[in-house]
This record gives sequence, structure tokens and C-alpha cells, in this order.
Amino acid sequence: MNGLRKGYVQVYTGNGKGKTTAAIGLSIRSAGAGLNVLFVQFVKGLEYSEHKALKRFDNITVKQFGRKNFIHSKPTKDDIEKAKEGYDFVINAFEENRYDVVVLDEANIAVFFKLFSSDDLIKLIKLKPYNVELIITGRYATDDVINAADLVTEMREIKHYYTEGVVARIGIEK
Amino acid sequence: MNGLRKGYVQVYTGNGKGKTTAAIGLSIRSAGAGLNVLFVQFVKGLEYSEHKALKRFDNITVKQFGRKNFIHSKPTKDDIEKAKEGYDFVINAFEENRYDVVVLDEANIAVFFKLFSSDDLIKLIKLKPYNVELIITGRYATDDVINAADLVTEMREIKHYYTEGVVARIGIEK
Repeated sequence: MNGLRKGYVQVYTGNGKGKTTAAIGLSIRSAGAGLNVLFVQFVKGLEYSEHKALKRFDNITVKQFGRKNFIHSKPTKDDIEKAKEGYDFVINAFEENRYDVVVLDEANIAVFFKLFSSDDLIKLIKLKPYNVELIITGRYATDDVINAADLVTEMREIKHYYTEGVVARIGIEK
Repeated sequence: MNGLRKGYVQVYTGNGKGKTTAAIGLSIRSAGAGLNVLFVQFVKGLEYSEHKALKRFDNITVKQFGRKNFIHSKPTKDDIEKAKEGYDFVINAFEENRYDVVVLDEANIAVFFKLFSSDDLIKLIKLKPYNVELIITGRYATDDVINAADLVTEMREIKHYYTEGVVARIGIEK
């Protein structure tokens, strides 16, 4: 839809809040401008409030390739299979080139948990069609991913009430 | 709507991308969970793509108190009047307590341009009803605002294609 405009690779990483929410905000902004958005979420599998909201937009497609509860230690075979399924889905989406904006939410975490490798993620970046804006989120972005990106923002936690024992709240954190 | 849950004060600051987009993402998430959201934007006055998208939600109210073009040097009398109008609007919204989540987008920039003072912003934080989650964005958050917040994230620019001379693109940056 955006013709021959060059799409960039944006990375949101760091230990602070706002990485996934920034990707959601960008998706909404793009959808508001009439662009087609694919929002792929790795690792996380919950039906968060934001997905309910994202699903209201005809031009945002949400796909989750995670599980109900977060990985705390070693990923299972099922975790790896789900991530591979998501990875193949993205390759296919790039081949079909039906989207203007593609979000790979928590892809850096998928690499961190070795669900796929940093080289695999770099391969996705290279396979991205010229016009696609690609958004990659998650802590622990590798140096290679940072080098391959056009824009990198580190969300740094300066202060967080979690440390005071607050539980994640519906509509705010999830 | 969220009863007696304590609302926190979140600040998104720093020179990196993703502050306003994170606030938009949070608004969408909250709206998806059925919360009432007030999204107040200072300084900026443009009809950005995200506002079109935010306006699709019955439970998100968007109010802008800025001007069409950004302040580059000294703010005008009109800039100051618009900001005061927005400030009073927020005080009134707090008194009526009809919102669960209140975003003060670019409020830190309003302080930076002396449209109102850091003390004025602290006053808003203190006036916030117990249950309201308050989100403040913009570069140059003052130390007082950071001290008054429960959660502070600094968006740090590590890499940015703007430095390569790319113009803001509809649906991506605006």
C-alpha cells in the first residue's frame, strides 16, 4: 500500500516498560493511516487486553505463537515448535508481501531462550520486502540484530513499582 | 471502573523513539480491558494517524491542546493559552473522576517550553484521584517529576535513521 517507500528496521529493547506497548501504538498509528499491519507475538501466548483492542481493526492481523504461561527456566519442545511455526509464518508473509508493517513482538526473547537463533532473526531481517517496516521488540537484543537495525531504542528502567510488590493489572500491564 | 485499585504515575522520557507510541499502546490496552481513557496531548496539535485510530474507541477521549506546527524557538502567547486550557481541562477531569487512565502526552515538553511549570505538573500529580493511572510523556522530565513518579522509563536513542535525513512518514512517525 505504501508503494516504493523504503521500510526500516526498528528495534525496541532494554529492561524498561514500554517495548510491546510502543509496538502496539505504532500498529494503531499505521492502521489509522490505512496501512496493513501484521502483529506477530512470540513467547507470550495469553489473550491480553491489547489483542482484544487490536482485533477491532480490519487492517491489523494478530498472530500469537507462544503459550499461556511465560517461560521461566528451560523452554519445552512445544515452545520451540510454536516459535518455529511463527517463524515460518513470517517468512511466508514476507513472500506474499501483503503487509506494510510487520511487528515481531518478543522476537529478541525468543532468541534469548534459543527458540530460534540470532542468525535466524537476521535472516528474517534480510528477507523482509523492501517496503515493509519491521518492528522487533524484546529484552536482550543481540549485537548482530542491533547492527542490522536502522533505529534502536533502549527502554531503560529508572524506577519501577514492581519492586514494591505490585501484581500485573488487567488493562495496565496486561 | 477499577474500584479502589491504586493508580500509579508512569513517566516515559528520554531522547529515543516510542514515548507517545507507548502511551497510545497503553491507552489501547486499557480500552480493550473496558477502562475509560483520557488522552490529552500538549504542544502537538496535528491530526496524527494515531488519533484517527484512538477515536474509534468509545472509551478513549482524545483532547489536543497544541498547534499545527511544532514550537521551534520561543512559544507564543497562544501556545501558553492553549496549554493552560489543557491544564484546566485535566484538573476538571480529575475533579469529575470519570477516567481510569489519564495520559498527559508531551507534558514534559510543555514544562520545558515553560507553558506551565514543573511545580504545576507536580500539582496535577498530587490532584490525581487515587484510582487513576497517570501517564506522563515527553523528553526532559524534571527531577521533581521523576521523584513524584512510581515508574520511570527512559527511552534512549541508540541508533536513528533521522540522522540519515529521513523525513517523518505518515503511519510510521505521524
